[in-house]
Amino acid sequence: MANMFPFSSDRQTKEAANLHELNEPLTDHSEGQLFLNETFKIIMEEVLRKGTDVKEKVCEWKEPEELTLLLDLELRATGEPQHKLLQRVKDVAKYSIKTSHPRFFNQQFAGVDYHSLAGRFLTESLNTNLFTYEVAPVFVLMETEVLRGLRQLVGWTEGDGIFCPGGSTSNMYAMNLARYRLFPDVKSQGLWGLPRLTIFTSPESHYSVKKGAAYLGIGTDNVILVKVDDGGRMRPDDLDEKIKLAKSQGSVPFLVSCTSGTTVQGAFDPLDRIADVCEKHELWMHVDAAWGGSVLFSKQHRHLMKGVDRANSVAWNPHKMLVAGLQCSALLLKDTTNLLKQCHSANATYLFQQDKFYDVNLDVGDKSVQCSRKVDCLKLWLMWKAVGSDGLEERVDKAFIHVRYLVEQMKKREGFHLLGEPEFVNVCFWYIPPSLRGKEGTADYQDRLAKVAPVIKERMMKQGTMMVGYQPLGNRVNFFRVIVFSPLVSQRDLDFFLNEIERLGNDL
Amino acid sequence: MANMFPFSSDRQTKEAANLHELNEPLTDHSEGQLFLNETFKIIMEEVLRKGTDVKEKVCEWKEPEELTLLLDLELRATGEPQHKLLQRVKDVAKYSIKTSHPRFFNQQFAGVDYHSLAGRFLTESLNTNLFTYEVAPVFVLMETEVLRGLRQLVGWTEGDGIFCPGGSTSNMYAMNLARYRLFPDVKSQGLWGLPRLTIFTSPESHYSVKKGAAYLGIGTDNVILVKVDDGGRMRPDDLDEKIKLAKSQGSVPFLVSCTSGTTVQGAFDPLDRIADVCEKHELWMHVDAAWGGSVLFSKQHRHLMKGVDRANSVAWNPHKMLVAGLQCSALLLKDTTNLLKQCHSANATYLFQQDKFYDVNLDVGDKSVQCSRKVDCLKLWLMWKAVGSDGLEERVDKAFIHVRYLVEQMKKREGFHLLGEPEFVNVCFWYIPPSLRGKEGTADYQDRLAKVAPVIKERMMKQGTMMVGYQPLGNRVNFFRVIVFSPLVSQRDLDFFLNEIERLGNDL
Repeated sequence: MANMFPFSSDRQTKEAANLHELNEPLTDHSEGQLFLNETFKIIMEEVLRKGTDVKEKVCEWKEPEELTLLLDLELRATGEPQHKLLQRVKDVAKYSIKTSHPRFFNQQFAGVDYHSLAGRFLTESLNTNLFTYEVAPVFVLMETEVLRGLRQLVGWTEGDGIFCPGGSTSNMYAMNLARYRLFPDVKSQGLWGLPRLTIFTSPESHYSVKKGAAYLGIGTDNVILVKVDDGGRMRPDDLDEKIKLAKSQGSVPFLVSCTSGTTVQGAFDPLDRIADVCEKHELWMHVDAAWGGSVLFSKQHRHLMKGVDRANSVAWNPHKMLVAGLQCSALLLKDTTNLLKQCHSANATYLFQQDKFYDVNLDVGDKSVQCSRKVDCLKLWLMWKAVGSDGLEERVDKAFIHVRYLVEQMKKREGFHLLGEPEFVNVCFWYIPPSLRGKEGTADYQDRLAKVAPVIKERMMKQGTMMVGYQPLGNRVNFFRVIVFSPLVSQRDLDFFLNEIERLGNDL
Repeated sequence: MANMFPFSSDRQTKEAANLHELNEPLTDHSEGQLFLNETFKIIMEEVLRKGTDVKEKVCEWKEPEELTLLLDLELRATGEPQHKLLQRVKDVAKYSIKTSHPRFFNQQFAGVDYHSLAGRFLTESLNTNLFTYEVAPVFVLMETEVLRGLRQLVGWTEGDGIFCPGGSTSNMYAMNLARYRLFPDVKSQGLWGLPRLTIFTSPESHYSVKKGAAYLGIGTDNVILVKVDDGGRMRPDDLDEKIKLAKSQGSVPFLVSCTSGTTVQGAFDPLDRIADVCEKHELWMHVDAAWGGSVLFSKQHRHLMKGVDRANSVAWNPHKMLVAGLQCSALLLKDTTNLLKQCHSANATYLFQQDKFYDVNLDVGDKSVQCSRKVDCLKLWLMWKAVGSDGLEERVDKAFIHVRYLVEQMKKREGFHLLGEPEFVNVCFWYIPPSLRGKEGTADYQDRLAKVAPVIKERMMKQGTMMVGYQPLGNRVNFFRVIVFSPLVSQRDLDFFLNEIERLGNDL
């Protein structure tokens, strides 16, 4: 095995000198704290000041080969001096995407909230694990309170819940709970004794429904896609028919996964009418509100999720629209029978001793599928304390107002063609360059239009002026999806966005 | 629905004043950065200076009811002024466990590495998602390099891998990959068409093997427990027999999950001999080295994992012994056929567009089961750059030396009774208080001994002097498991540990 050992340096003298000095810890606190201090300054300057300044770039594009060389990523036997490491910190900051920049419209995360970020730094420094009250007393209680606050917005005065590493995991948890409720023996015996199970969702739902079906042994073929209306919303009539059809074919429907805020179009499935269908067929109703859930903070817009209180479970990612920072994903449950723990527990005696001196119900770790679980509640709690529900409501409302403005401006400009009226803060549109205008009927129009967005995207990234995503959807060729919600965005940034698309695409 | 809305305050005037000022972002950078600065100072003082000072407490125990009141956790409609929020930051720090404290011996995480912590702060501030090169150019390349470095230590010059949210998830990924390799149709069709599948592991393996079997639809009954030797190591002869028996009963064995560093005893399964059995039966060999993997850095101790290069997959958590900070869990694969992506991909067109202007193989996000994925590589990379492989080797070697010292001291003291000679850095022992010494044969001895550890634990937590875990195991009643590896620990802390156990338990 010796020849497999990749790193080597002469250690014999060092061993004699260091290893036997048992009384000296390996850590040099003053040097370490100095380094942390310097890193903090770099973060403040490069990431938070420059990284949010519209006069600075959103990204510093480099080809992967060049970036690999610039970063000198190789890991070696010997360490490096502090000044060199600080240069590395600067390089990482420099070549990373400035996702907090007001002109980063690329994903469903953007912007920065300083209170949340403070909570995240504190979380990292406290470095604990949310599994027992013993090692996380503050966070066990805090998570409970944050989940209660979120559940209250759903309309539930009681229930359960847990923070998960991402919305996909939340959706999979819901899938597992729905399956377990119907067939508790699945936990010990697996799926073999059971009839074929089926899940219902729309083709515009998040891909995690299919990934979850594959992972949980159910299979993607057993995810049945329900038709959507023109706006991308699940059709309850088709849901009812598909459920009946599945039953007639011998499968057992057990879960309807609806979406509040679809990934591309931002559509909200009609929850109230879907709840009627779920009640009729006695199915678990899960709402993937990872993206759209934050409308529940807004008195003006929460009607989009009318009926959510009739669901069994809701996945909601405050790391998206509320800017809590990645990752912050809550799974909320109406259940009051301790289903989460029954379904997931393994009763490890080394961690969840029953003879502890405090109430062992506070050891929440056996509710999760994983063991180590990051503390994701502090950042949301501190931000919520800082701005209140009113402040979070204001963010949501302002995002809608920005979108209304953006849509109005698009309608005034010749080259912008909306897919439809946005229901949420996703604005989907084609940019039609001058050379293509008025040629909608020509044979190669769709092919040529499909090539526009990728070229504009390449240009904006190479120039670093902004970032926005594009994609095809069904039979609709590549279109842009601009997401507007960052609290750092102003009307000027929206005007810039429109001008920049025109500037980058005018010659195409 | 209006009556369900939990938070309310008069918003009408505010709306007029704020919401329509589209040109003003909601974020006040200078106020926010000031808050972040003040929080950073609190972290430096309360968490990093006091929190690592042996003259300060490891924990400030409060009953949950009292702590709930102290923290004022309730979430309200209106926000709070900065000075009040800073007090909250202080309170969270004060009542949280100081897991970096040299006398926190409670879990498989402890200590602090300042370079890693700097990497974590930078990660949080950059707030991106490891799914595309587009939004995470630096981290896509960096993760690749870190995984290569870890694989090299396993003994593989090529392969694949991914960082997962915790070791349990890594183990479940391996389970899913092993299943998919054998039956690729499981992804689309689920388990129904397949024969019953069985997994083999030892009773001392981590509980995530059973949790994974339940979650993936295989069922905990289909996890077959292989006998262990006196040291808690899986017996290859029994493995071979159990596999044959399972086959004769009509099930299809598909995975052996071995452990390098069991959770309680720190045992290393004999990988080379297990590999022989796996090869004979053509089974996927997974090594859960979440805890023990770090011995691979040590020329002196890597023999404990001899044969690991014959495995198909290895789970390794640098957030444990290497002090990279929670969470940092790598799944390493020998596979070079892109199994990870084939098994997990959903090909979402909104994220993984195939007509991007760069090499889309850099968009690694479809290798994961989840969608959002935190950047967990930067902290490890920066720490590795800072101290080199040699520095990490030194940490591992020093931990073993500390353990040797601790064990020698225990043998010299009357009240300490080891379960056995430690193979790793877990030291398992009973503390026998004076009243129980020499009474090993009496009828209620085991019952009385079982009550010792919980009382000592309660006392140490209420006094805040240190933290160490205890548990029963099989027919062995409650014993302590002290974990020694933090780079902040010195011999003085080990002496303190022994004295403190005696002080707290002498009257029992």
